Amino acid sequence: MSSPQAKRVKTNDDAPYELIYWPGIPGRGELIRVLFEEAGVPYNDTAKTAGDQAVPMVLGFMAAGNKGDAANPPVFAPPVLKHGSLTINQAPNILLYLAPKLGLAGAAEEDGDGDGDALFHLNEIVLTILDGFVNEVHETHHPVATSMVYEDQKPEAKKRAKAFIDERLPKYLGYVQRVLDAKTSGEGPWLYGDELTYADLVLFQREKCVDGTQYAFPKSMGELKKSGKYDGVFKLYDAVKERPNIKKYLESDRRTPYSSGIWRHYPELEE
Amino acid sequence: MSSPQAKRVKTNDDAPYELIYWPGIPGRGELIRVLFEEAGVPYNDTAKTAGDQAVPMVLGFMAAGNKGDAANPPVFAPPVLKHGSLTINQAPNILLYLAPKLGLAGAAEEDGDGDGDALFHLNEIVLTILDGFVNEVHETHHPVATSMVYEDQKPEAKKRAKAFIDERLPKYLGYVQRVLDAKTSGEGPWLYGDELTYADLVLFQREKCVDGTQYAFPKSMGELKKSGKYDGVFKLYDAVKERPNIKKYLESDRRTPYSSGIWRHYPELEE
Repeated sequence: MSSPQAKRVKTNDDAPYELIYWPGIPGRGELIRVLFEEAGVPYNDTAKTAGDQAVPMVLGFMAAGNKGDAANPPVFAPPVLKHGSLTINQAPNILLYLAPKLGLAGAAEEDGDGDGDALFHLNEIVLTILDGFVNEVHETHHPVATSMVYEDQKPEAKKRAKAFIDERLPKYLGYVQRVLDAKTSGEGPWLYGDELTYADLVLFQREKCVDGTQYAFPKSMGELKKSGKYDGVFKLYDAVKERPNIKKYLESDRRTPYSSGIWRHYPELEE
Repeated sequence: MSSPQAKRVKTNDDAPYELIYWPGIPGRGELIRVLFEEAGVPYNDTAKTAGDQAVPMVLGFMAAGNKGDAANPPVFAPPVLKHGSLTINQAPNILLYLAPKLGLAGAAEEDGDGDGDALFHLNEIVLTILDGFVNEVHETHHPVATSMVYEDQKPEAKKRAKAFIDERLPKYLGYVQRVLDAKTSGEGPWLYGDELTYADLVLFQREKCVDGTQYAFPKSMGELKKSGKYDGVFKLYDAVKERPNIKKYLESDRRTPYSSGIWRHYPELEE
């Protein structure tokens, strides 16, 4: 058998983008959406456009019978991105694929020596933000098993949330503030270089102050904000929120409200 | 301030590789080591070469005062790779950087249309393997807090390990088997295309049968192996183990034994 690339159609760059994700929750799909929205690039969001096929589409990708196709291995879980003949999953992977195409790799694109090294800085920042503000937030309400409902793991969740709030949240916020304090952060409120990059959008969507972690842990995030130790982080959040395209998006009905996804607000977990 | 890339030295490709990681445990550092070992490319492994400076070196990178340098943002945690003027962290990020340079991106390198899409398939496979066989394995003995010792979270660990063994482990093994069954897996025992890639090495190191998850959960992995449902996965493990360079490495004193890192063997977690 020849290598799979032999069959690749070469016109991906002009092809439309399709995002396949669960309807009804922002979740990891929202990480991808904010890139398209900021870039002003149209995309087919099947959570919104596929009607009662939206859920079956996601389940089809996750099915044990899904063996991919001639050019694509099977995916594990949504979000899934289709672009021309390419199908990929894993949020940080989709982000890394899209960012340069959507003009959101900032200084990495202008990297004069063409070695693309700067993209590895953006990728490491994004992976760390996802670890801290997506994966570990999810663990606070599901410390025992993803398959069990929160109500069946409340005592464990309480302990886990305490450790997250006391130790992990300040640690990750401190990391982000250090990235902002670094020489590589350049001018402006941005994480890397002088322009907004996809890392800023991920931080905005993930840990930001009103959405995501703030939604889940408003009291703790409020106290950490008041400490003054992470001012850069909160300033960055405000700067992203004021981007004209992001502002329009947040006010639109394309924005999915938080509910029972990754970021949940259980007041008892902060007590 | 100009963009950070302006200061980048352009000779990374000829520069020596340096891996900074905790001494005494294989951990996530081992993911990086197996690439160098398979490729037969020399690297400075500070866990082995830095003597009593090995731990302080790691701690220096993690320190609150670490603000990176003119060309590199601060890192969050080890493993850290230094290559010329570039410093990066996050295991999947380091792997993605190294694989094409070490000739371990397989079909992705031969991608005739030069769009590099195949690398996004390898990256998604690696991210999923890491989620399932590194991150979730670690959670089984630290479901409440990374900062607490296992002995203080034993009841929670027992519950978490049960869910991992019953649900997550078969789910991830099933995914890997599906990737192997896909057309994109090509000839031979490999995950993607017709040649060994870094994804195979990650699977070997991570979920493999003798090391890692097998070390942590020998009984459960043994039963899953006997089921016959994941034969491709176990065959792949054997194929990697027989690679001449990997064989030499496993027999050498460069290989760090498992102890109290990510993969721990607590027999009670399987009962």
